[in-house]
Amino acid sequence: MERTEIEQLGEFGLIRRLTKDIKHQQLSTLLGVGDDAAVLDAGDRKVVVSTDMLCEGIHFDLAYMPLKHLGYKAVTVNLSDICAMNALPTQITVSIALSSRFSVEAADELYSGIHKACEVYGVDLIGGDTTSSKAGLVISITALGLVDSESVVSRSGAKTNDLLVVSGELGSAYMGLQVLEREKEVFQAAPTAQPDLSDHTGLLERQLKPEARVDVIKEMADLGLKPTSMIDISDGLASEVLHLCTASRCGVKVFEEKLPIEEHTYETARVFNLDPTLCVLSGGEDYELLFTIDQSDYDKVHNHPKLTIIGHMTEDAKELTLITRNGMHTPLTAQGWDGIVTGQQSEQGI
Amino acid sequence: MERTEIEQLGEFGLIRRLTKDIKHQQLSTLLGVGDDAAVLDAGDRKVVVSTDMLCEGIHFDLAYMPLKHLGYKAVTVNLSDICAMNALPTQITVSIALSSRFSVEAADELYSGIHKACEVYGVDLIGGDTTSSKAGLVISITALGLVDSESVVSRSGAKTNDLLVVSGELGSAYMGLQVLEREKEVFQAAPTAQPDLSDHTGLLERQLKPEARVDVIKEMADLGLKPTSMIDISDGLASEVLHLCTASRCGVKVFEEKLPIEEHTYETARVFNLDPTLCVLSGGEDYELLFTIDQSDYDKVHNHPKLTIIGHMTEDAKELTLITRNGMHTPLTAQGWDGIVTGQQSEQGI
Repeated sequence: MERTEIEQLGEFGLIRRLTKDIKHQQLSTLLGVGDDAAVLDAGDRKVVVSTDMLCEGIHFDLAYMPLKHLGYKAVTVNLSDICAMNALPTQITVSIALSSRFSVEAADELYSGIHKACEVYGVDLIGGDTTSSKAGLVISITALGLVDSESVVSRSGAKTNDLLVVSGELGSAYMGLQVLEREKEVFQAAPTAQPDLSDHTGLLERQLKPEARVDVIKEMADLGLKPTSMIDISDGLASEVLHLCTASRCGVKVFEEKLPIEEHTYETARVFNLDPTLCVLSGGEDYELLFTIDQSDYDKVHNHPKLTIIGHMTEDAKELTLITRNGMHTPLTAQGWDGIVTGQQSEQGI
Repeated sequence: MERTEIEQLGEFGLIRRLTKDIKHQQLSTLLGVGDDAAVLDAGDRKVVVSTDMLCEGIHFDLAYMPLKHLGYKAVTVNLSDICAMNALPTQITVSIALSSRFSVEAADELYSGIHKACEVYGVDLIGGDTTSSKAGLVISITALGLVDSESVVSRSGAKTNDLLVVSGELGSAYMGLQVLEREKEVFQAAPTAQPDLSDHTGLLERQLKPEARVDVIKEMADLGLKPTSMIDISDGLASEVLHLCTASRCGVKVFEEKLPIEEHTYETARVFNLDPTLCVLSGGEDYELLFTIDQSDYDKVHNHPKLTIIGHMTEDAKELTLITRNGMHTPLTAQGWDGIVTGQQSEQGI
C-alpha cells in the first residue's frame, strides 16, 4: 500500500488534490473552493462563507497566547476573510474541542474573547459545537457575511496596469511573534525573570489581537471604490500577491520602498538581525487587505491615511518582480519562514 | 484560582454557560444558538447553518470506522441538522486537522467519502481548511441549506394534542455499534480471527453509513405537510423528545408499542442482553427526523411507509411519560448510555 507523507504535498498541495474534482450541483453556489470565501446566491444579496481551523501546538502556543486573545483572534482572522470578498461579516459559528486539561473557567476565558470580537464587529454568534478532545485545543470557526450582488470582489479580477494597494502597515505582527518567542526562551532559561515587553506593546498587540479591516471595507464603499481583486494577508505579502497574480493571470511589480513598514517594526527587525522587507514578504498574520484598483481610482487611494500603493499589475504573467530600494529587479517568491532566516543570514553577510 | 471540571457541567451545560449572554446585533439573524441549525435572512429565502465537530477517540474509533465511511457520515450528520429545520441542504465547508500518522492516501480516503455524500445529496463542497494536528484526526463541518421563509420549522412550535411522528426505524444504529464493539474485543483477543459480520450488515450500515432524511423533507413538501416542530435524532429518542417539549413548553405521551423497531434490531438487542426500548430511547445516532404535526394532518401521515406516529403532545409541561406495553406510565428521562446498561441489568433481573 502506497504511503505519501502530507508534508510532501504541503497544505496547498493537499487542498488542491482533495478538491480538484469538485463539480457544483447547486445553482446557488456562485463561487466555491479557492478564494478567501465562498459566495452563495440567496436572492438579492449574496452570502459569503469562510472557515478556519486552529490547532494548539500548530497555530498557537498557549505559553504566550492568553485564551481570551486566542478567542478574539480566532474570530477576527475569519472576519478578515469575509472582508477580503468586499463583504461585511454578520454571523459566526464556533466549534471547540477541549482536552481535560482545560477547565470551565478556561473555556469562559476563550469565549470572553470570542464574545468581545462579536461585540466589537457587530457579528452574531449563531451556533457551534463543544466537544472533548484527546489532546489539546482545537477551534473551528465559520464566518458568514452579506454583500450586494454587484459588490463581490474575488481574487481573479485584476488586469494589466491596475494599481496594487495594501491597507495599514505590514510586518509588525511577525515581529511581535519574534519578541514573544524570545521572551519564552528567556523565561524557560530563567523562570523567575520578569519579561520586559513594554517597548513592544504595539507589536505584541498586532500579533495577539489582530483586527479585521471592516473599517476599510466600509470606507471603500463610502468612497465608491470597488477593488478589481482582493485577498487578505495571512501568509505574508509575497504569497498573497502571487495568489492574486495566479487567479487574475497577471504579472506584478512591487516596489520595496513603498512597503508600509512602521519605524518601530523596522528597528526591531534590525535588532533581531532580520531583514524588514523579508519579514513583510514572508512573515504573515498581518490581516491587512491587499487589493488591486483601476488606475482611474488613483485619486481615491492617493494620500488615503489607511491605504498605500505598493506596485502595479503587468501583462506578462511570468513577471513577478520586486524592485528593491537600490533598483534591482528580483523575483518575488513565496518563501516560508525559512526564507526569513536565509534573509537574515544574507543580511548579516552584507 | 477556581477550577471547575468540564465534566461537572456536561456538554449541554457548558454550551448554555458559554452562550447565555448572546445578544444578536444583526437584523439578518432570525434564529441563533439552541436549535438544530441557525436561520439567517437573506431576502426572499432563508439560509440555514449548522456545524459539528468530530474528534478521534471521542466521536469515532478508526479501529472499526473506515475513513471513507467516516467522511460520508461526517457530512450526513450535518445534513440531517439542516433537514431538521425543514430545509434542503445545499453546501458544506469541511475543515480537517490530521496528525503525521495520516498519509495523503488516508486523506484521499476520507475525502472520497465526503465527495460521495456530496454527490448523493447534491450538495456542494464550497470551502474549508486543512491543517496539521498534534494528535489524531479532527473533522469540523458546516452545512448550509435553503428554505422558503414560510417553511422554516424550529423546535418550539409544538402545541397540545399535536401528534408526535418519527421517520424510519430506530435503535439499529446503536445495535450496529454494539456489534462492532464486540468484534473489536474478539479481534483484540485473537487478532487472526476473521470477523463474521454477515448477519448484521443492515445494523452496521446504519452505524457506519447513516443517511440524512432529505427524502422525507421532500415528501412532506409534496404532501403539503409542514411539521409544527422538528428535531433530528442524534442523541437517542428520549433526549430529543425532551428537547421538543422544553422548547415548545408541552408535555408528551410516548407509546412504547408504537416505536418503530425492526425485528432484527429487536432480536440482536435480546442476544446482547439489552432492552430494545432503552436502546431506542437512549442509544442515538439514528439520524431520523422526530417532529410534531397538527391533528388535522393525520391522514397525510397515517399509513405513510416512512412515518410512524409514536405519541402526542400534552398540555402539562411536566408530563413527560412513556406508556409501556403493559400500560404502565413511566417517566421519560434522557438517560445516557449508562442508562442502557442499567436497563440491561433490570432486564436480566426479569
